[in-house]
Amino acid sequence: MLLTKTRKEGLKDEVSKNANLLIRAGFINKEMAGVYSYLPLGLRVLNKISNIVREEMNKIGGQEVFLTVLQDKEPWVKTGRWSDEVLDVWFKTKLKNGTEVGLAGTHEEPLVTIMKNHIRSYKDLPVSIYQIQTKFRNETRAKAGIMRGREFLMKDMYSFSRDEKEHEVFYEKAKGAYNQIFKRLGLGVSTYFTYATGGTFSKYSHEYQTLASNGEDTIYCCDKCMVAVNKELISELKECPSCGNKKLVERKAVEVGNIFKLGLKFSEPLNLTYINENGEKKFVYMGCYGFGPSRTMGTITEILADEKGLVWPTNIAPFKVHIVELISENKKVKETAEKLYETLAKNSVEVLYDDRDVRAGEKFNDSDLIGIPLRIVVSDKGLEKGEFEVKQRIDGKVLSIKEKEIFDFVNKYN
Amino acid sequence: MLLTKTRKEGLKDEVSKNANLLIRAGFINKEMAGVYSYLPLGLRVLNKISNIVREEMNKIGGQEVFLTVLQDKEPWVKTGRWSDEVLDVWFKTKLKNGTEVGLAGTHEEPLVTIMKNHIRSYKDLPVSIYQIQTKFRNETRAKAGIMRGREFLMKDMYSFSRDEKEHEVFYEKAKGAYNQIFKRLGLGVSTYFTYATGGTFSKYSHEYQTLASNGEDTIYCCDKCMVAVNKELISELKECPSCGNKKLVERKAVEVGNIFKLGLKFSEPLNLTYINENGEKKFVYMGCYGFGPSRTMGTITEILADEKGLVWPTNIAPFKVHIVELISENKKVKETAEKLYETLAKNSVEVLYDDRDVRAGEKFNDSDLIGIPLRIVVSDKGLEKGEFEVKQRIDGKVLSIKEKEIFDFVNKYN
Repeated sequence: MLLTKTRKEGLKDEVSKNANLLIRAGFINKEMAGVYSYLPLGLRVLNKISNIVREEMNKIGGQEVFLTVLQDKEPWVKTGRWSDEVLDVWFKTKLKNGTEVGLAGTHEEPLVTIMKNHIRSYKDLPVSIYQIQTKFRNETRAKAGIMRGREFLMKDMYSFSRDEKEHEVFYEKAKGAYNQIFKRLGLGVSTYFTYATGGTFSKYSHEYQTLASNGEDTIYCCDKCMVAVNKELISELKECPSCGNKKLVERKAVEVGNIFKLGLKFSEPLNLTYINENGEKKFVYMGCYGFGPSRTMGTITEILADEKGLVWPTNIAPFKVHIVELISENKKVKETAEKLYETLAKNSVEVLYDDRDVRAGEKFNDSDLIGIPLRIVVSDKGLEKGEFEVKQRIDGKVLSIKEKEIFDFVNKYN
Repeated sequence: MLLTKTRKEGLKDEVSKNANLLIRAGFINKEMAGVYSYLPLGLRVLNKISNIVREEMNKIGGQEVFLTVLQDKEPWVKTGRWSDEVLDVWFKTKLKNGTEVGLAGTHEEPLVTIMKNHIRSYKDLPVSIYQIQTKFRNETRAKAGIMRGREFLMKDMYSFSRDEKEHEVFYEKAKGAYNQIFKRLGLGVSTYFTYATGGTFSKYSHEYQTLASNGEDTIYCCDKCMVAVNKELISELKECPSCGNKKLVERKAVEVGNIFKLGLKFSEPLNLTYINENGEKKFVYMGCYGFGPSRTMGTITEILADEKGLVWPTNIAPFKVHIVELISENKKVKETAEKLYETLAKNSVEVLYDDRDVRAGEKFNDSDLIGIPLRIVVSDKGLEKGEFEVKQRIDGKVLSIKEKEIFDFVNKYN
């Protein structure tokens, strides 16, 4: 039923916990440092994360696009970001005729160029555009698995508003959407809205930092309001910017999203304007909203995994149920497992079925390593009692569920 | 309701009909020759095509993966395909440490390398893996719009079998899936299963060629059995390979898919083996199944468009219904249009709503250009009679539908 095989050992040259676990469990494959392919199990998780993000972006009116990887030099020269000395993570290549092109690591320049064709009047604003697309950054070191790759999936949203005031209204909406995303990903209680250094157009930018013992960042948390201050700012901002709480707790964290004002940084050099109510030409005011689906997948991997392997929250698990059929001379075991599989699948429960001809211990180990929320064992012993043994991956709790009650149990489990 | 604006004129430097129409209608944006971004309308069409393909691949047991763009040189050197003299469409770039990497235009090498970890015994076969992913080919000329790009979307499936016999069984299944795809895309009656030159492991390869007056290819069609022979083979194969019909009709066509045996071409140099029932080590027998979602979108654009603009089949239209509200002093017009929009949207009908403050003629022209199957006009005139004027884009037929019957009408329309 499953393409991939698990491995007992990680890769010797892979130093990150997330990638080694995901490789061992058959979710991803390492092509080179910082570059990972997604195998069926891994792609299912990545798509579920992306779809949650997509739904929340759509709810706040985001319109989805799909921009290109290959980048024309011109708009990047205009904003001063073509040079490798400014954007030091460019991959560049050449067309047959020698024209140099870049591989996009972000998309402000091409999107602003596109919007020049579609924004004319104040009536066209505000508008917000997003994509979920593969980005490229030529990182010197790539040792964090899928948490910091040379090729990775990114959701980047850009908002276009008449002015700072209109921008602020959308910015608040975006915050709400981000809160929903982290809640649905099971990261609501461990993700802090974090103040970090800003740019030309704002004093601060905002990061979403998820607590993780081996995170790259250090943040100072106000646990009253789930707000934090990035270490880079702590000498300047010694208390919670939201409630004034002075008792901030230092913790390690991973930046899984960031949102910030762009102001006129791109609309000025690229001349993105609109005509206002009084017939005057004005520059469009922009904001930017990033989220890394693959990085978040890596973060969740590291936070939730235990010594036995991966542990997936139900919302993003590759499957909800893992049926483990134990080898038996009694034909009824296979029949029961197959019937259970069909019943669940028919009722839209995502189910993985392990009917391999290997011993129980190996199946249990693989099931723990893969980390699907519910394991249902179909065995001689259970059949005798008319029961299934169900193990919850998250807490290891083992339940005996009557055959006729299994569907209801699975259906209600969250 | 819509981000994009239409244009009266195409681009001067764009010679292809498909790209010019799609750009004028706001479906895509040209980044450079052969490189196009997908805007909201265009992405909806592209995703619908991809999802039809995905469903049919899943039905025949295909497992979806997502491989990387960046390619490690090693497996390509082993198969002799790293050199630009062999694969002349490579884009190449460099990591910071100087290591040369490629941008994938196809994925046999990395996938076979991955499968070495997951295929061990005959019990693991047959298996079929596919992805829908962005590919890169450094074409010298790129003048066919989204029908032949430097960056484009591709569905590539690869099958792994024990031997030629097992391969043939899967190959027949794949043919069935391709027939379903073209049928669902509305191309069933214009797409020919076409014999073309083969490779080391087979006399012929098979192409799916869709008739198009300005297609790149010339094929000789047997209209009895929807089979054709590519011009490159016609001196060798003078009759229909399926029924022996000698009356073949010469026509222009576009290759929208191709399927062929790979045999041991990649398993030998990359040493992809399995242990058979007798404990012997054997090379895995492979097949390859390509389909271009973006190329097909371009083909459908060119085939179905008329002098007024795009015409989308319902299955892949960006929306099913285009509500055009005409400007009126009578508040009831707007109220009715809004209510209609909400009713349809609530019932999962995909609907685009044009409530812009522009004259009727411009709205009708835009609606024709965008090519949504059903246009529903909400106007004073209609309201008086308790009716909506409905225009079918495909045949220009105009109907008057009673207000209370509109939902049923829309729902049944295919």
